[in-house]
Order: sequence, then C-alpha cells, then structure tokens
Amino acid sequence: MNVKDKILEDAAKGLVGFAEAVAKLAAASGSVAELGEARIDHARRERCGFPEFVYGAGKSLEQLLAIVPEIHGRDRAVLVTRVSPGHGEALAQAFPAGEHDSVARTFRIRDSGAELRGNVMIVTAGSSDAAVAREALHTLEACGVRGELLADVGVAGIERLFASLDKLRAADVCIVIAGMEGALPSVVGGLVRCPVVAVPAGIGYGAALGGVAALLGMLSSCASGVTVVNIDNGFGAACAAARIIGLMR
Amino acid sequence: MNVKDKILEDAAKGLVGFAEAVAKLAAASGSVAELGEARIDHARRERCGFPEFVYGAGKSLEQLLAIVPEIHGRDRAVLVTRVSPGHGEALAQAFPAGEHDSVARTFRIRDSGAELRGNVMIVTAGSSDAAVAREALHTLEACGVRGELLADVGVAGIERLFASLDKLRAADVCIVIAGMEGALPSVVGGLVRCPVVAVPAGIGYGAALGGVAALLGMLSSCASGVTVVNIDNGFGAACAAARIIGLMR
Amino acid sequence: MNVKDKILEDAAKGLVGFAEAVAKLAAASGSVAELGEARIDHARRERCGFPEFVYGAGKSLEQLLAIVPEIHGRDRAVLVTRVSPGHGEALAQAFPAGEHDSVARTFRIRDSGAELRGNVMIVTAGSSDAAVAREALHTLEACGVRGELLADVGVAGIERLFASLDKLRAADVCIVIAGMEGALPSVVGGLVRCPVVAVPAGIGYGAALGGVAALLGMLSSCASGVTVVNIDNGFGAACAAARIIGLMR
Amino acid sequence: MNVKDKILEDAAKGLVGFAEAVAKLAAASGSVAELGEARIDHARRERCGFPEFVYGAGKSLEQLLAIVPEIHGRDRAVLVTRVSPGHGEALAQAFPAGEHDSVARTFRIRDSGAELRGNVMIVTAGSSDAAVAREALHTLEACGVRGELLADVGVAGIERLFASLDKLRAADVCIVIAGMEGALPSVVGGLVRCPVVAVPAGIGYGAALGGVAALLGMLSSCASGVTVVNIDNGFGAACAAARIIGLMR
Amino acid sequence: MNVKDKILEDAAKGLVGFAEAVAKLAAASGSVAELGEARIDHARRERCGFPEFVYGAGKSLEQLLAIVPEIHGRDRAVLVTRVSPGHGEALAQAFPAGEHDSVARTFRIRDSGAELRGNVMIVTAGSSDAAVAREALHTLEACGVRGELLADVGVAGIERLFASLDKLRAADVCIVIAGMEGALPSVVGGLVRCPVVAVPAGIGYGAALGGVAALLGMLSSCASGVTVVNIDNGFGAACAAARIIGLMR
Amino acid sequence: MNVKDKILEDAAKGLVGFAEAVAKLAAASGSVAELGEARIDHARRERCGFPEFVYGAGKSLEQLLAIVPEIHGRDRAVLVTRVSPGHGEALAQAFPAGEHDSVARTFRIRDSGAELRGNVMIVTAGSSDAAVAREALHTLEACGVRGELLADVGVAGIERLFASLDKLRAADVCIVIAGMEGALPSVVGGLVRCPVVAVPAGIGYGAALGGVAALLGMLSSCASGVTVVNIDNGFGAACAAARIIGLMR
Amino acid sequence: MNVKDKILEDAAKGLVGFAEAVAKLAAASGSVAELGEARIDHARRERCGFPEFVYGAGKSLEQLLAIVPEIHGRDRAVLVTRVSPGHGEALAQAFPAGEHDSVARTFRIRDSGAELRGNVMIVTAGSSDAAVAREALHTLEACGVRGELLADVGVAGIERLFASLDKLRAADVCIVIAGMEGALPSVVGGLVRCPVVAVPAGIGYGAALGGVAALLGMLSSCASGVTVVNIDNGFGAACAAARIIGLMR
Amino acid sequence: MNVKDKILEDAAKGLVGFAEAVAKLAAASGSVAELGEARIDHARRERCGFPEFVYGAGKSLEQLLAIVPEIHGRDRAVLVTRVSPGHGEALAQAFPAGEHDSVARTFRIRDSGAELRGNVMIVTAGSSDAAVAREALHTLEACGVRGELLADVGVAGIERLFASLDKLRAADVCIVIAGMEGALPSVVGGLVRCPVVAVPAGIGYGAALGGVAALLGMLSSCASGVTVVNIDNGFGAACAAARIIGLMR
Repeated sequence: MNVKDKILEDAAKGLVGFAEAVAKLAAASGSVAELGEARIDHARRERCGFPEFVYGAGKSLEQLLAIVPEIHGRDRAVLVTRVSPGHGEALAQAFPAGEHDSVARTFRIRDSGAELRGNVMIVTAGSSDAAVAREALHTLEACGVRGELLADVGVAGIERLFASLDKLRAADVCIVIAGMEGALPSVVGGLVRCPVVAVPAGIGYGAALGGVAALLGMLSSCASGVTVVNIDNGFGAACAAARIIGLMR
Repeated sequence: MNVKDKILEDAAKGLVGFAEAVAKLAAASGSVAELGEARIDHARRERCGFPEFVYGAGKSLEQLLAIVPEIHGRDRAVLVTRVSPGHGEALAQAFPAGEHDSVARTFRIRDSGAELRGNVMIVTAGSSDAAVAREALHTLEACGVRGELLADVGVAGIERLFASLDKLRAADVCIVIAGMEGALPSVVGGLVRCPVVAVPAGIGYGAALGGVAALLGMLSSCASGVTVVNIDNGFGAACAAARIIGLMR
Repeated sequence: MNVKDKILEDAAKGLVGFAEAVAKLAAASGSVAELGEARIDHARRERCGFPEFVYGAGKSLEQLLAIVPEIHGRDRAVLVTRVSPGHGEALAQAFPAGEHDSVARTFRIRDSGAELRGNVMIVTAGSSDAAVAREALHTLEACGVRGELLADVGVAGIERLFASLDKLRAADVCIVIAGMEGALPSVVGGLVRCPVVAVPAGIGYGAALGGVAALLGMLSSCASGVTVVNIDNGFGAACAAARIIGLMR
Repeated sequence: MNVKDKILEDAAKGLVGFAEAVAKLAAASGSVAELGEARIDHARRERCGFPEFVYGAGKSLEQLLAIVPEIHGRDRAVLVTRVSPGHGEALAQAFPAGEHDSVARTFRIRDSGAELRGNVMIVTAGSSDAAVAREALHTLEACGVRGELLADVGVAGIERLFASLDKLRAADVCIVIAGMEGALPSVVGGLVRCPVVAVPAGIGYGAALGGVAALLGMLSSCASGVTVVNIDNGFGAACAAARIIGLMR
Repeated sequence: MNVKDKILEDAAKGLVGFAEAVAKLAAASGSVAELGEARIDHARRERCGFPEFVYGAGKSLEQLLAIVPEIHGRDRAVLVTRVSPGHGEALAQAFPAGEHDSVARTFRIRDSGAELRGNVMIVTAGSSDAAVAREALHTLEACGVRGELLADVGVAGIERLFASLDKLRAADVCIVIAGMEGALPSVVGGLVRCPVVAVPAGIGYGAALGGVAALLGMLSSCASGVTVVNIDNGFGAACAAARIIGLMR
Repeated sequence: MNVKDKILEDAAKGLVGFAEAVAKLAAASGSVAELGEARIDHARRERCGFPEFVYGAGKSLEQLLAIVPEIHGRDRAVLVTRVSPGHGEALAQAFPAGEHDSVARTFRIRDSGAELRGNVMIVTAGSSDAAVAREALHTLEACGVRGELLADVGVAGIERLFASLDKLRAADVCIVIAGMEGALPSVVGGLVRCPVVAVPAGIGYGAALGGVAALLGMLSSCASGVTVVNIDNGFGAACAAARIIGLMR
Repeated sequence: MNVKDKILEDAAKGLVGFAEAVAKLAAASGSVAELGEARIDHARRERCGFPEFVYGAGKSLEQLLAIVPEIHGRDRAVLVTRVSPGHGEALAQAFPAGEHDSVARTFRIRDSGAELRGNVMIVTAGSSDAAVAREALHTLEACGVRGELLADVGVAGIERLFASLDKLRAADVCIVIAGMEGALPSVVGGLVRCPVVAVPAGIGYGAALGGVAALLGMLSSCASGVTVVNIDNGFGAACAAARIIGLMR
Repeated sequence: MNVKDKILEDAAKGLVGFAEAVAKLAAASGSVAELGEARIDHARRERCGFPEFVYGAGKSLEQLLAIVPEIHGRDRAVLVTRVSPGHGEALAQAFPAGEHDSVARTFRIRDSGAELRGNVMIVTAGSSDAAVAREALHTLEACGVRGELLADVGVAGIERLFASLDKLRAADVCIVIAGMEGALPSVVGGLVRCPVVAVPAGIGYGAALGGVAALLGMLSSCASGVTVVNIDNGFGAACAAARIIGLMR
C-alpha cells in the first residue's frame, strides 16, 4: 500500500483526524505559493468565486512588489486595497499596466477583456463618502461585477433619494454608505426588494465615535434584512455583492 | 449697623464671597421646605417656569406621601414620574384626586382649571414607544402645554410619515421618539422648521445597547438643529418643549 | 383645475416640496391600516418582497390580538417574533390555526399552500444557538424560502464542519450563527462561494460581552464578503436571505 | 390624461407608493442642484427655515470652490464649517467678500443687509471653549439671529456666573458650552426659564474621554428640560436656537 | 546559629529575596487568623488605622457567622457592608448586640464607649442617595469618626446648597454623593478649603450608565483637588475620610 | 481505482481542495457522535489531551441527559460546567455515580482510578472567589491533574501572601483568581518562576464593571509572562494548566 | 432705603432668589478680573486655600501672556500646567523670574520666600511616570507643601517598595502614580495609615486603554480608603494633598 | 542582641509587620541598583527565571544609556523593547555588540554562547503580524528558548494551516498571533495538545477597534485552555512561553 492509501485508510478508520490526513496530502500540492512571510492562496477563486485580493496596510513595498506579479501570473485582475500613497505610486511605476487611485487608496491592474455582470447601485449619504464608494466600485470591477454610483442622497433632504427611486428599484444589490447616524440604509431597505448591504462611514465628530454610531444604528435598523459590514469597508461590501451576483448565473 | 447691612457691606468690599453673603441671608427665607431627607424647592416655578416635579425612582412610599401634599399645597398640578406600580397605587388611594398610569409610570393630580397653550406633536417610530410618549404627554399637561400623539411612523415605511406631514408642519415643537437606529428625528428634522427634540428609546436587541445606538445616532444626526435628551426621557423632552412654548407668550 | 392637478403643478414648479405633494395625495389612499397606536403597512410586500412581520417585544396582548387578524386578512402568512411565553400561548388559543414556539419565541400562522424556493443553510457553532436558528427557520418559511439546519459544527472541532462541506457548497445562502469568539463565519466564508450572513449569538460569559465580542469579530472577519446582522437576530438574517433568494427568480 | 395626471391617479388608488409618485414628479423640478458628487438642496430654507450650510470636513477644495458660488447665487449668506486652514485661506482668496476664521474653523460670506432677531446667550465654562463658541456665533448670524458671548463662568468659581444672572435671565435661549464634567448647563438650567441647549466640549484629559464625560453628564442633567447636541457642535446648537427663535415671529 | 539568624544572614547577603525571608518568619506569627477559606488580618488596625471590615457580598451566612465573632473578639467595633437582607437579619438574631440597617445594607456592632473625633459632612445631591450616605455614616462611626448628613442640595436648585455654606466651611472633610451628572462635588470643591471626596451614585436612567456618567464627570471635575471613589462606595469614602482625620491627632 | 484513491489523487493534483478531500473521507468515520442538535467530538482527547467537556449553560435537560452517557461511554470522567441548580440535581439523580456542586456549578462523574499528576496552586484574592476556584479544581481533576487551594491572600494584606511563598514557589503552575482591581497576579508573577494563569473574577461594584477592570488590569500586568483567561473562567484556566502539565511527561 | 437694603429685604422675604441678590451685589466687587475671554478668580485662595492655577492646554500665547502677570500681581506663586513646549519657552523669555519644565509641561514662577509645610511622598511604579510625578511636585510647591519622590517601585519587584517602607509610613500623604494595571496604590494602601491618592498613568499598550485599565483598577482597589484622580493628573493629586495638609494647621 | 536579631524577634512576636522587618533588612542588600529615577532589579532572574528586560517606551536616551550597561554587567543578554527608531540607532552606535531591529522595535545584545532550549512555534494569521512575531522571537532568544515562525496561515484559507499541522503538533508551545477577528487561536487550540498563548494584533479597521475585537474573541475562545496576553504583546507571550519551557528541565 502506498503512502496515500495508508493515509486514506487511517482516516477512514478514525485512527488519525481528518485534518491531519489532509495535512499530509498538502505537501504534494502547489495551490499555495510561499513568498517569504506571505502565502498566496491561488485556490481562492475556485473556492470563493473571486481571486485573492491584497490588503495593503502594514505590508512593505518589497512584499507588495513580490505579491502583485505572483497574483497577476494566475489571475488577470489584481487589486491592492488600503495602499499608502507612497506604495501606490511605486507600484504604478513598477507595473505600468496598473493604476493607483489615491482617494480610494487602491492599486489595481484591470482585466480589460472581462465582461461585467449584474447591476449594483452604490448609494452614499454625503459627498464625504467618496473614498469608500470608490473602493467598492474598484472591488466590484475586479470581481467582474458592474457598479454605479448614486451620491449625496442622505435623509436630511430625503427628496433627493426619492428622485432616484427608479434607479434603486432596478438594482440587483444596493450598497448603502452613510456616516453620522447611518440612517440611510433603513430608508432604502424600506423602499426596495433587493439585498441591501450597509457600510458605516467613519465621518462625523464626537458622538459619531469614528463610525461606531453609524455601525450600531445600521445593525439595529428597523428595516428587515439589511446586513452590515465593517466601518469604511467598501471592499467587503463589494465582495458581498459579488457573492450575491454570483448566485444569479 | 444691623446684621444684614454688615453682610452687604462685607460682600461689597470683597471680604466675604457673595455666595457666603447669600447663605447668611437664606436663614430668614421660607422658599425651601425641608421634609426629612428631602428639600422641596418652591421657588422653581418662579425661576424655571414650571413647578418642582417628583422623580419617583428610589424614593420610599413615606417620602412620596409627605412630598405630594407639600407640593399640592402650593401648586395645583402634581406630577410624580418613574413611580413603581405599588407606590403608584398607594398614592392613588391616598389622594383620590390623583390618577396613576402604570404604562407611563406616572402619578399625577391634574389642575382641571388650567388652560393649555401651544401645540407639541409627539411622534413615535413604533408602537413600543408608548410608555415614553405618555410620560411626555402627562408632563406637557402638568406644564400647561397642549400635546398630541402621532404614533408608529418609523422610517422603514416612510410613507406613513409623509401622510401626516401637514400635522408635523403645523406644530410648534416636535418631540420625536425612536429606538433601534433612531433615524426618525433626522428625517423629521429635514422636513420641518420648528424645534425638534429627539428622545432615544431603550428598545431593540443586542447592538441597540439599550438605547445607546439610538442616542449616538440622534446626536450625530445629519439634520441641523436637532437636540437630544436622555434615553427614554419623555419627561425631559416635555420640559424642554415647555421651556420653548414659554417663550411664545 | 382640480386639487390633484394643482398639487402636481406646484410640485413640478418647485413651489412645494415633493414629499409635501405626496402627503396631500396620501389622504385618499388605504394602504396603511391604523389600529390605535399601530399602523400596519400593507404595501410592504409590494415594496420589499415580504409582508410586514410583527415585532412582539413591548407590545401588549391587546395590540397583538388586533394586529394579527389585520395582517392575516391580507397576507396568508403571519409571523410574530420575540413574543413572550404568556402572549404566545394566548395567541395560540385565540387563533387555533397558528402555533407558538417557546424556544424560538415566535407565533406564526403558516401558509400551508405556499411553495418554498431556494436553499438556505443555517449553520450553528454550538447546540446553545438553537433559539436563534429556529427563529431564522420560521422567518425563512414565512418568506417562502426553504431552510435547513446544520448544528454544532464550531471551530474548536473543525472536522465536524468539513464533514458537511458538500452541503455548505450546495447552498444558495449560508446563515452562520456563533457566539463566544464568533469565528465560524470566517471559516465558512473561506470555503464557499455563496453569500454568507453572520449572526452573533449572545452566549458566553464575561468578555463575550453578551454577543459583542462575536459581533466585532464577525465585522472584522478576514474572509471577504461576509455580512453581519444584529446579535441574536435570526429574523434579520432570514429576511436578508429572502432578499437574496428573491433575486434568483 | 397626461403623465402627471396618471401618476396622481395611480397614487390616489394606491397602485404605486406615494414616494414613487413623487420620484416621478421630481424629474421636472430644479430644486436640487447636482455638482458632481454633491447635490445642493436649495429647498432647505423653505422647509427648515435656514439655508443649506456646508460641512467642510472631508471635502476637497475643488468641491468647495464649486459649492460656495452655487449657494451664494441663491442665498445671500454662505457658511462653511470645519474648514481646514488651507482650504479656508484658499476660499478667502477666491471669494474676497468672505472671511475665514481659523479659530472657529469657518469660512463665511455675510449678508450685511440682514437684520438680526432674538437674543441668544452663548455661555462658556472656560476660556478654552472659544472655538466652539465662535462657531455658534457665526452660525447664529448666518441664520439671522443675534448672539452674545458670556465666557469663562464655570462652576468651580460659581460666583462669576451669578454676577451675570440678569443677562442670563434676559435671554431667549441659552447655549451653554462646557468640557470636563459638563456641569454648567445643570446650574444654568436651574436658574432660568428659557430653553437651554448644552454643548459638551472635547477638552479635558483622560477620563474626560474627549468630551464623552461632559456629554453623558449633560444628558443626565438633574435640571429639567436641558437638551444636548453633539460634542463640540456649536453649529448644531446654533441651528437649534434658530429653530426656536423662528417660533417667536 | 539558630534558624532565624540564618534567615537574617542570607537576606542580608542577598542570597535569598527579602520577601522570602519574611515568609519564613511568618510561620511563627499569629496576626492572621485562618477561618476555612477566609483569613482575618488582625494587624490591619495597626498598619492602616482602622480594623478589617467585612465585605458581605458573595459570602455565605456560615462564613459571616464565623468571621463576625473572630473580629469582635479583637476589635470592639464590627462592620459588615453589602449584606443581603436575609443575612443581615440572621446576623442580628445571632448577635443581639448588633443591628442591621436594610437601607444601608450594613450589619454592625457598635463600640458604645468609643469617642468620635473630627467633623465629616456627608452631602447628597438628592433624596435617592440615602443608602450610600448611610453606609458612609456607619463606616465613619466604626472608624471612630463623627459624621453629619446634609441631604438633597443638588445643583438644579443651587440655593439650597448655599443656605448651608457655613456648615460646609466648618467641616474637616466633605464627602459629596451625587448621581446623574455628578456636578455637586465641583461646586462644593470651589467653595471650601477642606478635602472633598466625591462618590458617584448609580442612579439615573439611560445615559447615566449606572453611575459611570457621574464617575467620569467627577474625575474630570474643574474644581482642583477633588478625589473620587468607586460608584456607590460610601464605605470607601468614609475610610478615606478616616485616614485624613487620623492625620489630625 | 477506488473512490478513496480518486479523492487522494485529485487532492494531490490540486483539483479539489484538501479540506474537500477530507470532507469526503469523513462520511466513513465514527469519531463524531450526532445527538440531535449536538455533535460529540470523541477525538478531542486524542487531539488536545483532555476529553470533550460539556458547557451546561443554555442546554436543555434533555440534551444533558443524552450527552452525559454518550461521553461516559467513552471517557471515564465526565464534567458539566455552568449547570443550573435544577439541572444539576436532576443529573445527580439520573446518574448516581456523579455529584453536583452547586457553588462551583458543576456536575461530574469522577474517574476514581485515575492518578493525578503535577502540582497546580490555585490562589484567590478573597473569600468570594470560591466558586471560580472550585470550578478550576474540578476541571483539573477531570484532566488528571492535582490542584491545591490557597485562599484569601489579596494584596491589601500582602503579608498573607508572603506567608505562603514557599508553597507558591513549589508549584508547577499558579492559577491566580482576583476580582476588583485584579492586582494579585502581578505580585505573584514577580515572585515565582512558573507559568501564571490569571483569572479575573466578576465581583466588585460599579467601576469593577463585572470583572472588566480586573481583566484589563491583568492583561496590562507589569509582571512579564502572565497570561489571562476570560472572566470567572476557572474551567479555562484549569485546561490551560492541564496543557502545561501535559508537557512535563 | 438704599439699593443694598432693598436687595437684602427682597431676599429675606423670598421675593427674589438669593443667588439673584448676590448677582446684584457682585457688580460692586473687584474679586474677579476680566481679561478678554478669561476671568481670573482672585478669591480662590481665600475660598479654597490655594491660588487660581492656569490650565495651559488650549490657551493661546496671548491669553497666557495676559493671565500670568495678572495672577503674579496678587499671588507670589504662578503655575501654568499642560503648557506646550513653544508657549513654555515664550513664557520663560517673557518672565525671566519663571522657569519652564518641558518634561512636566509646566511653567512656574516660584515664591522663593515661602516656607513649605507637610510631607507628601510621591511614589511611582515605573521610570516612565516621571512627567506626572514632576507635575505633582511643582504643584505641591506652588501650594506651599513639601514633596519627595520615591520612583520605580512597582509591584512586579515588590521588594523595592518594602525597602522604603519607613519613608512611606512617615509620610502625611502618599500620592501613588502607576500605569498598566495600576496595582501599586492597593499595596501601598494596605501598608500605611495616611491618606493615599492614586493617579492612573496613561502608559502601557493595547488593553491598558490609555490609562483606563489603571483607573478602573484603582477605583476598584481592595485597599480601603484609597481615592483616585483623573488619568495623568499629577496636578489634581497635589491639590488634593494640599487640601489635606491644610487641615493640619 | 544585635539589630538583626531584634528585628527578627519583633517580627516573630508580631510586634511589627513582616514586611516592615524585611524593609529594615533591605538596607544592607545590593540586589537593587538605583540609577537616578530607575531601579534595576538584579534578583529578577533568580526569582522569575529570566533577567529584567527594559521597556523602552517613554524612557529617555539618557536613561537607556545608563540602564543597558548596568544590566549587561550582570546578565549577558540585554533586551530593550518598544524602542523608538532614534533611540534604537543611538544604542546600536553606543554598544556595537548590540543590534537594532526597527520592525520589531527592539535593541538587544545577544549572548552568543547561550544554548537554546525547547521548541516554540510562533504562528501568524497574516503577513502584517511580522512586527509582533519578531518581538516574540527576540524575547524567546533572550530567555534562552528556541523559536520558529509559521507565517500567514489565517482561517480564511484554512488549508494553509493544515499543511503545517505536523509542525504545530511537534511544538512545545504555540504562540498564535492574529488581528481582525482573532479566530486562529481557536482553530489551533482545537488541533494541538500543547499550551497555546494567543496574541491579539492591533491591525484591522473600524470595528476591529485596534485589536480589542481580537482580544475579546480570543478570551471567549471556544477552544478550551487558550490563554491570552495584551494586544501586540509579543514580548509577554514569549515570556509566558519561557516560563513554560522552564518547567521542562
């Protein structure tokens, strides 16, 4: 009996844990690329429907310069989020096919041939939410999903929102970004049928507590079925939308 | 020179602090009634425009039985808030002219001859806010102010609010009570000109944090000029409204 | 020119706000039923894809006895959540077609003829999460969605989860309920493509802070695209899932 | 039947939601000006009694340079709050009719012909509250309201407050700004009849928690009818005062 | 060389730590009485100036029945704080020389022969602070210190305080108890020379956060030299006062 | 090629994820026992060195009556923690070999033949920490580890601790339980070489915040190498100690 | 009757409030100096036993340059705390008799002729607490009190503290400064008779929460009669000590 | 009788406290080195098994330049943690035998001759945890313990962890570092027998709250026997591991 059969048999008998069996098989596989202190998970697209994206915060330029081509070699689209201005510019110089957006804090290499699917409406309460909205837009595109922006329609002048009600009702998913009291997702959630993903924004002073007031408000929303992601996490909201659009095939 | 002149002279020269001068004068006055551990401030109506109300929480029945007639002897209206069910019933038996409302947790003796002034609209987001709304109504009445209730018009079905927009716009003051995310005052504040006093309600589970989510949201409201009182504090909101109506003489 | 034309014309000219125009039209409509202090929003199914559900906490039995038939008269399915044991039993007696589940804290009248759509997997970390899971199941059914339970597969014995990986990967949506550190959604989110809705459970002692630890953990999940609802909010997670399944028509 | 009549009729019959009806009418109106990612709400003065002010934080200079003349074209007074020093100076250069106050963090173009109404007393506990007080003063003026400053009368030397008691009692509204323990509004609220709007200031070390201690204290004030706005929110307090003064016409 | 000398010598040479040396000496001493799971520290009066008091919360009746006579055997005065009603009554039956105060939650055996020293004024903001004030009074007496109560002089009717200014200024120490916003110690601290010990009381609703608002306010007091003890900790404030009075010998 | 070989081959080639391979193998195994909504993880002793214990909180009596014999059938020792008084007594009746400790909130069936290893000292600051200490003792015993109790040696009478220094220094592991300010682990950690596991206890009033003050203090300990478990988690501290003792074989 | 008599009479009859009477008297007094937005309270020494100190944070250099000579003209000692480095140096240049300590963040003009009274021991847990300790020392001296420093005797090496026990026991007051878990005051409080004022220091990482962990720990101290001031508030602790020393005359 | 005998005798009789006895002996000892405001505890290695390390934050360069040689003179290994970049470089110049690691924020002089014992695996969830991991590695080495790094194996791609399961299971201690939701220690704790020390990392945005989310999650871990240290405290985790390895002699 060869080694693999032995592992298999032991696992089936319960002599070793299943995870342990897998661990032994793992040595033979190439789905994880080791780059010094980072490990690129090339199987993520297969498992989750989108490639591994790069969280740029806290990574050195050297790490980023190694990771970007490793991902690009397997996936056409590359997205680095929360990239510092300096690293973003350095990446743009190193990889001329890519582009750095200093507002969204992203670096990305777009897959120009990809066709975009779905219709995600990104709604913002104020004009100060632009950074979060653009991070969401870039992430949607990297996931192969079409996004559109509806900006500055907060509840203090609620008629601005109603003026765009047709657009909202035509969307497959609404991503709703709001700071301060974070009331906009509750209103939108009461007006549309589609999934609503709320993003608390970290703006506002004092008792807004850097987005915590909006976060708590959105979690407590009186509109049924609104879900929430982390503060300023346009990236996460877009991934959630992409998971939903992925269902519609 | 008599004692009073001496006090006056010393104060004018700065030899004693002014407060100290007053302290010495105070002995001759009868505006504070001492009832064991409580002191009734009969000058409050003169100073603040409404009589001293009684905060019932933590007071013994004996204390309440002594305080109520003391106030009633000077002011026609008596209001005890946050009264326990047992104390409320005992007060109603002891003072047949009064009435106990177990939902609002109030005991009150109404001044039937008083004329009510002004027009305060009490708006609630849900039907669970009734206790707070009724505490506010009773307090308004004890202050000589007219109140009206507009219930269950929360933002998840925002057309219910719009259907009553004329009423809102005719009000002198809006008291807006909402739990969960507390979004209703922001919407109301964007639709009316009059003062808006927001009351966070302590309902909702988990991340509503017993009203803290609504409180933070209301403080962070994107509608300019909304003010806020403590959680479930219908009493305080009504006093604030009474201060405002008092300006309109 | 009749009144409606006048309203319309004024709105088009900007002389009155649009919401005000709507407010005037609203008087002629019957989509909101007033029941004393409650207003039933019969247009919700049209707008949001599911009927108005009843949040039972803080409502009196009288309110519930009035609201349930009002809803049942228009919608076949009725769901009351967070109902107290006493009210639940009283409702079951008053409406024999309904059933009270004291673990899930729900009362519901099921629409036996309804066909269920979709495939939502409700995953729990421990056997103490049953109440939340059942609230989610009942809500899904009231929305016309099929749910299935996969219980007690928390990360401290992670092989229990892997043993059901096929089921997870076959789901349209995963609702993942976990208390304590709330790690399960991160692991599930890294293994499946479909939308993942995380529900923090309020169990655990001390530093679990009544579900806040799990809530913060889920919001901070390293798995991209996981969304979160309020603590113990099985109802909200199910509504979110129903919004998603509604897209798949 | 023309399009407007059709909308009207459908709304009256309940075939479409009211908000939806409004949305369709909105296309014909010009009360909202779109400036790239911002939407200026020119109907705000009509609805709320004061024009749309500009929250300068997080806006780019380009946005501000476009928004200021748009507002100035319709309203004589312009007020930008929380403007950064750089943007404030750039605005002052671009619009010589305006002035930048680096302490108050405002840029404003004053309406020199406007007559000021009312009598709002701005009371501060310490000399470190000047920035908040000046933001309030500038906002009052932009609302057409007269304000006056009574500075550095905190409770640790309470005779300083009593020395100005006549002024306090002559005011229509008191805005009371205090950091640290935020006790001043309770004392003022016990001495005057008029509305008292409390502003917690973010000064003080450690346990002052950046204004949270003062905020909680003010919300818990033992003086009845004190209302509260967000930390350091002199702007919001002034808008609240303007709403109150507006009642006095 | 005997054992003690050996220990001494080793310690002097640094061969063993000093604490270790002490540990070895400790075996020969009788200053700690072991009572099952409790150890009575009879040396406390010697070290700290007052005897060991008994914190009753969480102790079983059996523990209390053993501890009380052990302390009484050495010290004339016994004080048990935070005693439950049931345990308090049981102790009063077991030790007829003692008395149980169900408001203060204390059981005590007084040392009738003791002479009281000093002059501590216990000032309360409202009549709901009686329990804390009485715990402080009983503790002062057990420490041999004279206390007096000045009740219900909160800042919303500040003239009540001024009427007693002479008493305040004659005190050696002021213990100031206040709930809600906790403003009273700041005012008292600005009026007297003597030490001021502030006690936040856990009363008030919502944003009072069970005494945390008052606690933070007192810590942030603008009156210099006010010190603070834990919420509702009348016992601790009295011990602090006793330490101060102890200095005056 | 049989099914197992196919799985193995696919895994080795990276065609399927490894976890997925394991999932397919899992169906053939019997190491997880399904009991309705619970899954018993019989492989835990093999993986972690101690059997699966039962967290009793939130479990129904029916669940416990099914789980206890399932575990007892494989492992000699059974331990249920956080069991309610009613369930504890019912278990003791159903399984006469077991015993219920209402203070420690445990039900356990002891393995009388087991030999205990190691020497773990459980140190408590006060006599109110007994429940936590006993939970730790019972857990140690269920893990086959010897424990000893050193009670009521808190830092306010630090000589009580020094009197037992020899015992502390002879221990393999110290579990140190303290409420209030949680200072004891810092002192112990500065006196001994062995691992110190700190347990914050949820006693103390007000600012002790139910154990959070002690928890934060212990995490911030100035003594190097002290580790911390959850509030009142005597169980977890004992498991940690058992992991350490397990190393010493 | 002159004006003063009229005021007096009205106050005695209760026709006007007492505070109001004082307000009218205040106009004739010179004990408060108005300096633009600041009011100097020259009566503070008379009332509280120490002069008005200057809280430098948030004050402009112009304000400081005006306040310092105003105070110096009446009181020989001047103390400005929390002064920025730039302002400190500018003050030292403007007033050569003064000195700036950039570690303590103080500027002071010492009263060289003053005799120091009392014996206050300032104890620190670590060498990083120097800034707080020096602020306390300078404040003591400005109050005419003698202070001494005992540094770096934290509980992780508790023998360092015991080595100085004689000094501790000879002190009139102990000010104990500690960051991290803030355990030192509990140990000191258990060893001495004198008043102990605890100062939480804002050092330590993560869970120390900028001094909040130490603050909560000190408030929860198991040593009876320890009082606490705000985080890093060496100034306040020294004022508290001065109030105590003032009693000893 | 000489002085020492007298001390001894008094202590044995209980006339003086034991600690006091030690204090008197302490004067003769040289185990504590006084360096201005710092006291070096040379007995720490004897008591705790590792030398005194230097916490560099908040110390001046002068302090560090004095402390490093003082320690180096007694212990071969020196470790300064949390050293600022400037101080780190200055130390490296002053002591050429040492090395500064700007990522780990350490300065250390290694004891090249020391033999390393044990086998501690440092596991990180992401590549951003490198700084914490390196601080842990340097501390282990300074304690004479062998460490190894296993990086970037977080739970969102859980197969990366399983691929290294053999390594994990061979370790004596696992230090597990994770930010965001901090789930990794729960998974590792369920897979290994050895002690697991969890380190929350301060990375992640918004609701990660600077490591608090991970901290709470780790404390609430469903894996039995996981212990936790402070946020980013690689140093503390390593000291805890060294205490454990020290047991294995």
